[in-house]
Amino acid sequence: MKVIARDLAARYFVGEVKYPAFFPTVYGRDRPSTEGVVVNVYRIWTDRESRKIVKKSVGEYLDYGGFVLPESGWRQIDKYGDDDVANEDLVEIQAKMEFPVVAPLPSAKPDDAIINAEVARSITDKPLFLEIPPSWTEKEVFAFVEATKGWAWGYGTRAGRSEFIELLVKTVPRSKRVVVFGIHHPAVIPVIVSLGVDVVTSGAHGRYADKELYITESSIRPLGELKELPCGCKICDGRTPEDLGTKGDLLAEHNLISFVEEVKKTRNAIVEGRLYEYAKRRSLTHPQIYKDFKKVVASEWITENLPFPKQSSIYLFEKECRPEIELGRSLAKKRGVRLEGLAYTYPFGQVYPPIVEARPSPELVVRSVIKYQYGVDVNTSQLRWETRKGIPRKIYMGDKYLGLIRHGDGFFVPSIEGAKWLKEMAPPPAFRIVLDSEGVEAVRLKRSPLTDHVLDVDPDLRPNMEVIVTDEDDEVVATGRSVLTAREVAEIPRTVAVKIRHRAV
Amino acid sequence: MKVIARDLAARYFVGEVKYPAFFPTVYGRDRPSTEGVVVNVYRIWTDRESRKIVKKSVGEYLDYGGFVLPESGWRQIDKYGDDDVANEDLVEIQAKMEFPVVAPLPSAKPDDAIINAEVARSITDKPLFLEIPPSWTEKEVFAFVEATKGWAWGYGTRAGRSEFIELLVKTVPRSKRVVVFGIHHPAVIPVIVSLGVDVVTSGAHGRYADKELYITESSIRPLGELKELPCGCKICDGRTPEDLGTKGDLLAEHNLISFVEEVKKTRNAIVEGRLYEYAKRRSLTHPQIYKDFKKVVASEWITENLPFPKQSSIYLFEKECRPEIELGRSLAKKRGVRLEGLAYTYPFGQVYPPIVEARPSPELVVRSVIKYQYGVDVNTSQLRWETRKGIPRKIYMGDKYLGLIRHGDGFFVPSIEGAKWLKEMAPPPAFRIVLDSEGVEAVRLKRSPLTDHVLDVDPDLRPNMEVIVTDEDDEVVATGRSVLTAREVAEIPRTVAVKIRHRAV
Repeated sequence: MKVIARDLAARYFVGEVKYPAFFPTVYGRDRPSTEGVVVNVYRIWTDRESRKIVKKSVGEYLDYGGFVLPESGWRQIDKYGDDDVANEDLVEIQAKMEFPVVAPLPSAKPDDAIINAEVARSITDKPLFLEIPPSWTEKEVFAFVEATKGWAWGYGTRAGRSEFIELLVKTVPRSKRVVVFGIHHPAVIPVIVSLGVDVVTSGAHGRYADKELYITESSIRPLGELKELPCGCKICDGRTPEDLGTKGDLLAEHNLISFVEEVKKTRNAIVEGRLYEYAKRRSLTHPQIYKDFKKVVASEWITENLPFPKQSSIYLFEKECRPEIELGRSLAKKRGVRLEGLAYTYPFGQVYPPIVEARPSPELVVRSVIKYQYGVDVNTSQLRWETRKGIPRKIYMGDKYLGLIRHGDGFFVPSIEGAKWLKEMAPPPAFRIVLDSEGVEAVRLKRSPLTDHVLDVDPDLRPNMEVIVTDEDDEVVATGRSVLTAREVAEIPRTVAVKIRHRAV
Repeated sequence: MKVIARDLAARYFVGEVKYPAFFPTVYGRDRPSTEGVVVNVYRIWTDRESRKIVKKSVGEYLDYGGFVLPESGWRQIDKYGDDDVANEDLVEIQAKMEFPVVAPLPSAKPDDAIINAEVARSITDKPLFLEIPPSWTEKEVFAFVEATKGWAWGYGTRAGRSEFIELLVKTVPRSKRVVVFGIHHPAVIPVIVSLGVDVVTSGAHGRYADKELYITESSIRPLGELKELPCGCKICDGRTPEDLGTKGDLLAEHNLISFVEEVKKTRNAIVEGRLYEYAKRRSLTHPQIYKDFKKVVASEWITENLPFPKQSSIYLFEKECRPEIELGRSLAKKRGVRLEGLAYTYPFGQVYPPIVEARPSPELVVRSVIKYQYGVDVNTSQLRWETRKGIPRKIYMGDKYLGLIRHGDGFFVPSIEGAKWLKEMAPPPAFRIVLDSEGVEAVRLKRSPLTDHVLDVDPDLRPNMEVIVTDEDDEVVATGRSVLTAREVAEIPRTVAVKIRHRAV
C-alpha cells in the first residue's frame, strides 16, 4: 500500500488501481475506461448455460483488462427468491473464471455469513471480498470482521447511512479495502471518501440513461429539460441534448464520466489537502448530503486520522467546524498552550481570515510550538534563535543546532541533536517510532523503514507528525515525518512507516 | 432579445450568441470554438504595417466565424505610453476591418470619453462598445451612459469590485450588453452573471498555460504538483500532467474549456432556477468570492429582478439570506398576509426543510394567496372551491370559474372571469400590462404582444407574475405570465412583454 496523499480519513494510494476509486457496475460487454469494474456474479450464473462463459476467465468474458470486483448478487437472489443458487455455485464460478478476489454469498445472519466465507475459503485460495448488510449490529460487524479478516481482501456494504459506513471503516483493519455499493449521484463521493472508503460503485449511469436522465454537477435532469449540455466532457463537447437522446450509449457514457471525474477531483482534493472544502461544496447540492457531510467532518474518526499539520492553508467562510482547527485547539488545550504563542503555527497561522491575531515574542513562539507538538516544557533560557521578521527560525543550544521552525506551517523540525535533546524530556514511546534492528539497518542503508520493523509508536501517532525514530534502547536513529496513524502501523504490513528526514546512523 | 430563462438578475437569452457568454481574448490566429471572442484593437494597430491586415475583415484576419468584440487596448496604450495612436486610428481600423461593433478609446475623463464616442460615431454607423473605467463616480457613469446610450451596443468594465459592476448593470439600459473584462478564474462567473452581466472575458487560459499553470475547479495549480488531471474534458481524458506539460497548446485549451464549461453550467443553473445555489457553491472556493456572493445576493438589485415565483424548490442548508424567501416575506409583510396562509405557496411551500409548518384551512389559503399576489382583500363568503388533500384548487364564484391555485407553487392563476373579478378590486396599472390597440390586435391574432405596444405596467412588475392584460379602457384582453421587469418593458424594444395564458379577445 503506497500512500501518495491523505486528508481527513481518506487515503490516496496505489494498489490494484488508484484508490479511492470508482468502479462502475457493468453488464454484458460494455468496457468502461475505468481501472476497475464491478460485475454481478449471480447474473453471470443465470447466464452460464446459454453462453458457456465459465470456460473463460472473467477478463475474457468481459473483454476487459482492468480489475474486476465481484458482487454476489445477494439482493437480486433475495428479491427474486432464487433457491437454486447456492454459495458454493457462486464461489465456484468465480474461482473458475479467475476473479482476482472472490465474493461468497452474504447473509442476514452473521453466523451463516461466516460459514459461507469458510466454504469459499475451502474452495479457493483467492482473497475474499465480503459484503456486510447494513442491518447488522456493531457487535455483529465486529465479530464477523474478527472471524474473517485473515482471508479478506476487503469488505463492502450498500450506500446508506453514513454511521454504518463509518462503523465499517472503523472496524475493518486499515490494510483491507472498504467498498460502498450503489451510490446514486457523484456528489456523494467526496463525503463517503472522507470517511476512508476506498471504492465506491454505481450502475446508475446506465439506469439513468435508459430513462433519458442526464447527470449534472448537482442533480439528475430529464434530457428534454436541458437547453444545452452543461458539461465539458468528450461526449458533451459539441453535442446537443437531442444528440444524446437518440444515442442512449452516449448518454450512459456521459453519466459514467460524471462519476469518474468526481473521483478524480476527489483524489486531487486529497493531494491539495482541501478535501474538507471540496466535500463541503459538493455536499451543498442536497440537504441530506450536507447533513451527512457535517456529521462526518465532526466525527472523532476523522480527527483520529487527520494528517496534521497540512501544507494547505485554510479558508474560513463562516463559523464552521473545521476538523483541523478543532484538533489544533484540542491539542493546545490538552498540552496547556495558549493560542497566542501559536499565531504562526498550523492551523492558527494558516487560516484566512486569521483567527489568532497576536504577534507573540520569539521566546513565546519557541516555548509554545515545542510544547504544542511534543507536550514538553523547554527552558528557553538555555536556547538562542535566529529570527526573520520577528519570527524565530533556527534554534540553537550553545553551538548545537536543534532544528528550525518551518516557514510554511510554523512547526518545529528537529535536527538529530534536537531529537536527542527532545527525547530526554519524555519517556518512550512519546513522539517516537521505535524500530527493531532490521528497521535500524534499513535506515542506515538509506531506505524507508517498514511497518513490520516497528516495535512501538506513540499511541497518538498521526500522519505528518515530526517524529523521532529510535532503536530498542531509545537511542536516536533518525528524525522523520510520519505517514500513518498508530493503528495503521500495527495493521498494515510491508508499508513505509515514516519518511526519514535526518539520519543518525 | 429572446429571453429563454432568468434567475436572480441574470438573463439567459439569444442574441448574437447565447448570453450570458464567455469570450476568450485571442491573440494571433488561435480559433477557439466559443461563439464569440475578444480582440485587442491596439495590438492589431501595432501589427498593421507588417501584415497589411487592414485590408482584411477581422473575420478573415482571425480566420474565425463567430462574433468579434473589440477591446480598445487602452490599458496597454496607457502602460506603454504610446502617444502615436489616436482614437481615430483605432476606430478607423475597426471600421475598415468590419468589426460588428466598434470600440472607441476610453478615457479617465468622462468628457473625453464622450468626445471619443462622438468621433467614432462620425466615422462609422456601427453600434459602439464603450469601456468604462472603474475609477469613475456614480454620477460620471450615469452622465456618460445618458450621453451615449443611443449609439451603444453595450458597455464594458474591468473585473474588480462587485459594487462597480452592479452600478454599471443598474445604470445601463437593460437592452444593452454589459461586459466584464479579464476575470482570473471560472469560479467567479456565476457570481458576476448573477448581477445581470451578459459577457465575461478572459485571456487567463493562455497566460496560465505559458506558466504551466492548470485551472482546476477551485484553483490554479502548477502542472507539476498534480498527480493526475482532475478533469473530464476532451483534453484531459486519457492524458497525464506530463502530456500537457510538453504541449502548451493542450494546457491552454484545457484552461479555456474550464471557462466555457463554467458558463454553460451557469446558464444551466439559470434554466434550473438554481443560480443562487450554484453561485454559492462556486463562491465557496475563495473567501473573497464568497464575500462578493453574499453582497450580491443580498442586494436590492437582485430582489428587483428576481423571477417570482420560480418552479424550482429551495434547499435550505443553514440560516442564510435567500433572496426568494426574503422577497416572499417582504411581499407578505407589505400586503399584511400572515405566513400561515401561505404554507403551500412559493417560496414558503417549496422550502426543504420546511420553514412554515402550518396546515391552513382552504378559506385562509384562498384569502391569503390572492392578497399576497394582488394586494386585494377578497370576500371569501362569495366564493367556493374544490379541494384536493385539504388544499383548495379550483375557485368559483357561483357558476363562474375564477381560476385555480396551481399545484406546483400554490399561486393563483386567474381565468378571464377571474381577471375581470380581480381588476375591479384595484385601479390600473396594479398587476396589469396595458396594451395599445396594436398590442390588443396581436393578442387577438394569438401572437405575443411586444414591449413596443405596452402603454403602462404595474411598477412592481417582475418576471413570472400572473398578470392581467388590459386595453386602454381597462377592459380585460387576456391573462398571462410576465417575462420582464417594469423597467425592462420600458427599455427593451421589440421584445415579448408577456406570455399570454388565456385570451378574452
